Amino acid sequence: MQAGIIGLGLIGGSMGLALRESKIFKRILGFDTSALHSRQALSLGLVDECVEFEQIQECDVIFIATPLDGIITTLQKLTPSSPTTTIIDLGGAKEKILDSIPQAIRKNFVAAHPMSGTENYGPNAAEQGLFHNKIVILTDIEQSGEYQVALAKQIFIAIGMRIIVMPALDHDRHVAFISHLPHIISFALANAVLAQEEPQNILALIGGGFKGMSRLAKSSPIMWRDVFKHNKHNLLEAINHFEKEMLHAKSLVQEDEWDALIEWMKKANTLHTFL
Amino acid sequence: MQAGIIGLGLIGGSMGLALRESKIFKRILGFDTSALHSRQALSLGLVDECVEFEQIQECDVIFIATPLDGIITTLQKLTPSSPTTTIIDLGGAKEKILDSIPQAIRKNFVAAHPMSGTENYGPNAAEQGLFHNKIVILTDIEQSGEYQVALAKQIFIAIGMRIIVMPALDHDRHVAFISHLPHIISFALANAVLAQEEPQNILALIGGGFKGMSRLAKSSPIMWRDVFKHNKHNLLEAINHFEKEMLHAKSLVQEDEWDALIEWMKKANTLHTFL
Repeated sequence: MQAGIIGLGLIGGSMGLALRESKIFKRILGFDTSALHSRQALSLGLVDECVEFEQIQECDVIFIATPLDGIITTLQKLTPSSPTTTIIDLGGAKEKILDSIPQAIRKNFVAAHPMSGTENYGPNAAEQGLFHNKIVILTDIEQSGEYQVALAKQIFIAIGMRIIVMPALDHDRHVAFISHLPHIISFALANAVLAQEEPQNILALIGGGFKGMSRLAKSSPIMWRDVFKHNKHNLLEAINHFEKEMLHAKSLVQEDEWDALIEWMKKANTLHTFL
Repeated sequence: MQAGIIGLGLIGGSMGLALRESKIFKRILGFDTSALHSRQALSLGLVDECVEFEQIQECDVIFIATPLDGIITTLQKLTPSSPTTTIIDLGGAKEKILDSIPQAIRKNFVAAHPMSGTENYGPNAAEQGLFHNKIVILTDIEQSGEYQVALAKQIFIAIGMRIIVMPALDHDRHVAFISHLPHIISFALANAVLAQEEPQNILALIGGGFKGMSRLAKSSPIMWRDVFKHNKHNLLEAINHFEKEMLHAKSLVQEDEWDALIEWMKKANTLHTFL
């Protein structure tokens, strides 16, 4: 079998490395709209060859690892070469993608979200073992072909992932709270501090928790623009819940309600009893 | 010389380990109001002996590493045994402590903030090398005795720290943004997610940036109650600046201002060009 990967950044590039290691495929082809990314992916050995879009369509399994808007555009253009062609997207929000999928290729398609992103991006960020021991969420698979689901599961297991299945609706709400909200908070914290502090002060005083909390603010703006756009409704709800907690904490501080503030922090502590 | 450490948690306990390694002191005595902490500190070898408060006063150098309210209480009770006695507090907010210091011991006192906290606390959290290559901020040292400042600097350098000197006023404003704000955000994020999500879902979907962003929510409520109380004014200002960024991001998402959102994220990205 041949695999094709569309989008050779952190996720697509790491998928190339993982597939090579798994030895499931004879050959791994890559495609990226950026000539620079294609060249980097080749020289880093992420894929065997970079080809034209048309050639990718000939592959038995096609992974789409572009930002989310790119996944939708790609799905409109893809013409599978066989009924068993398996198309797997690796995007971080699922409802809009599933709404956009042309009925002609619905059986070929499996919607997957590997929970293995980092704040780094581009082919240089690709890592051997990125998916190892991580969760991959498959959504709405009852509408995918049986063959395609079985093959997708086999591939994800072969590269060391643990599979969870859930409706796209639930997926998008969960990740709004557990992934998208933390990202927007990190961007906001970075901007609040940048507006107030001289870079040399930030650098000097970098202990105290700031580094970890601002790490996600390094993430790709284009990728996250698409995620926030695709999951707008759930993200706004998550932000509202978070804002409520911030306002509550602020009013406890303002009103010198220190015992209540301790209880509020103790509640937050409980998260780590099962983490 | 003998050193005494009041408060044998993460910072006090790690100071015991660091001082032992530096070999500056013949003997390191410890005091903690908790009998359990005293026993743990002894069995972990953080100090040579746990003694009564009166005996600690006989030491040449006395470190105070309790939560902030405890530092103020301790300073009211301490009677140095000699004009060269050096009292060093290790608290994370400085103005209230410096306002509270009795004039009789002002020369004996050096206000220090080692930027080396973690989310862990108690004697078991103490670490060898915790202060190594970290920043320590000394504040308002022109009011401390020359002997005391020289000795404090010598000790901090001996345990591997880099010294920054600044007014308490500036210190408290900087740490509000760079340390205290990230902590309150992390507590708020943990509580927002706990209120919305079943523990098993959080656990399952833990990739995607949540773990790092909620790490600080594990921190000690009592310690942080004191920090938030002592730095209330600056913290509230920092929260307001952060909230403004969150509201800005929220309105960009709400109004589908995706290009402006990209610019906002790109601004946040610049933080990491010098981090």
